[in-house]
Amino acid sequence: MNAWAQRVRQGDRRALARVLTWVENDTPEGRRALHDLFTATGRAHIVGITGPPGAGKSTLVAALARHLRQQRPQSRVGILAVDPSSPYTGGALLGDRVRLPADLVQDAGVFFRSMASRGAQGGLAPATQRAVQVLDAAGYDPIFVETVGAGQAEVDIMRLAHTVIVVQAPGLGDDIQAIKAGILEIAHILVVNKADRADAERTRRALEDMLRLGPGPDPTWTPPVLLTVATTGQGVPAVAEALAAHRQHLHRTGAWQRQDEARLAQALDAALRDALWQRWRATLPDEAYQAVLRALQRREISPAEAVARLLPPAPPPA
Amino acid sequence: MNAWAQRVRQGDRRALARVLTWVENDTPEGRRALHDLFTATGRAHIVGITGPPGAGKSTLVAALARHLRQQRPQSRVGILAVDPSSPYTGGALLGDRVRLPADLVQDAGVFFRSMASRGAQGGLAPATQRAVQVLDAAGYDPIFVETVGAGQAEVDIMRLAHTVIVVQAPGLGDDIQAIKAGILEIAHILVVNKADRADAERTRRALEDMLRLGPGPDPTWTPPVLLTVATTGQGVPAVAEALAAHRQHLHRTGAWQRQDEARLAQALDAALRDALWQRWRATLPDEAYQAVLRALQRREISPAEAVARLLPPAPPPA
Repeated sequence: MNAWAQRVRQGDRRALARVLTWVENDTPEGRRALHDLFTATGRAHIVGITGPPGAGKSTLVAALARHLRQQRPQSRVGILAVDPSSPYTGGALLGDRVRLPADLVQDAGVFFRSMASRGAQGGLAPATQRAVQVLDAAGYDPIFVETVGAGQAEVDIMRLAHTVIVVQAPGLGDDIQAIKAGILEIAHILVVNKADRADAERTRRALEDMLRLGPGPDPTWTPPVLLTVATTGQGVPAVAEALAAHRQHLHRTGAWQRQDEARLAQALDAALRDALWQRWRATLPDEAYQAVLRALQRREISPAEAVARLLPPAPPPA
Repeated sequence: MNAWAQRVRQGDRRALARVLTWVENDTPEGRRALHDLFTATGRAHIVGITGPPGAGKSTLVAALARHLRQQRPQSRVGILAVDPSSPYTGGALLGDRVRLPADLVQDAGVFFRSMASRGAQGGLAPATQRAVQVLDAAGYDPIFVETVGAGQAEVDIMRLAHTVIVVQAPGLGDDIQAIKAGILEIAHILVVNKADRADAERTRRALEDMLRLGPGPDPTWTPPVLLTVATTGQGVPAVAEALAAHRQHLHRTGAWQRQDEARLAQALDAALRDALWQRWRATLPDEAYQAVLRALQRREISPAEAVARLLPPAPPPA
């Protein structure tokens, strides 16, 4: 294990910040660190938090982190705030830019990182996955991953999580219910935040009605619908309990281990495909590749013919 | 070219229906047909239609097809309705199940197909792409691809389109605007349907305000915001004109050809990666693969070490 990985394992926050930048940019140093840290991963509870802008996701994550730190002073809580930085969904327009309250900024047991598309080499979801691995190896548990629940990157990111919390604000209209149906399908825990508003109870009932219409992501787990006022902390302990209960549920049913093994099998396949591609591509003169590509682009040959021209004949079956 | 592909090219609707089923299921016959039809693809204008359930997407597509057929009796219009068939977003709950009006069912110049997750081998987006290719080779132009704008499959499907129409119903609340921001980013044409409702004009202004806040998918194209009453056909000719204008824009700026070439380059890369993987995997005893995978899953070795164990050493650089 090299020095940087060692410093991360020992709790050095400056080393952690630097290694996170490397893995976000997928640099050689970052790949080296991930390799060195790998055997220490797989322990943290990864919790996705999603929901529409304005629902109060950041405030809820901060309140959860505060509660968990008070409950277990030895614990370390990681927070990754993912911002796709598009002209529309960037924080500026939506007034939902991620901030960490001052008490958490000063808490050495909380590590916060904002992940943006810029710098996230190879896509935001893979970059977030790498950052989660680093925090995991550094002993952060749970690790909250917060996104605006809109595009493809966010859906991919929520796949990383053991537990997904979907946060809503009161005031679901009929239209919005239908749109949010896709989000309900990924929710293990539903939270109606800003529950001091008059229509919070109605929104909770609407969500419970929707849940009755179809199973969530796991037929053996009934997603609770919880009310919170994240700004005051009201209802936050119940969310923390639901998180612990879902974690236990995953361990008890074996789902935790099955998901972990499936993820690693996928990671191996992806790494092998990349390696095979890079090795083969390094043996092929670029002109040969471009000539075949141009013939395909002029539709003189089909993709299948293009593959046949570029690859040597397949070996006979054994 | 084999007999099935020939019949598709000659306008045989029963052959077309059968070949579409094959490509949806990715059967050997389907792959053969795609290969045979490939040189005849790349002509059709592919138009994505998305938006929330209840906005009237299906009715608008039907009205557009009717208008285009009346304008150009020689034309053939293809419609693919994509239904992710999840327990929540399936048509039954949302009351938005796709139907084709009787006059279009009887019109030999219109071909309608409903694409469902079940049977869509390898994912709904690749299956839809294959179906678009078959309709394209069969001379259908434009080809409408309609989805509920929610999950990842839908975003992938919209990437297939030259032009994306986002349909809204009147009555955008403040909440819903933010959620829909992600959808605006992909819209080349915005339609407020059910414009006979009182608040249609307000919704149009809200959409125009949002468009002013940031560029759409193409900085050289300003998305028009159009009002329609699809059930009566009101406003539908203007949508058809906007479609034609965007098609011209894509040709004039060279974007049509650039996108086509980029798509084919991606298709070639994906096909090569698959072929390399399959060939390599066929040479490797499964026990050897499983042994390395298990060591990875026990976190005894990292993914990079697993790749190094499974692949022969890379050839020295030339």
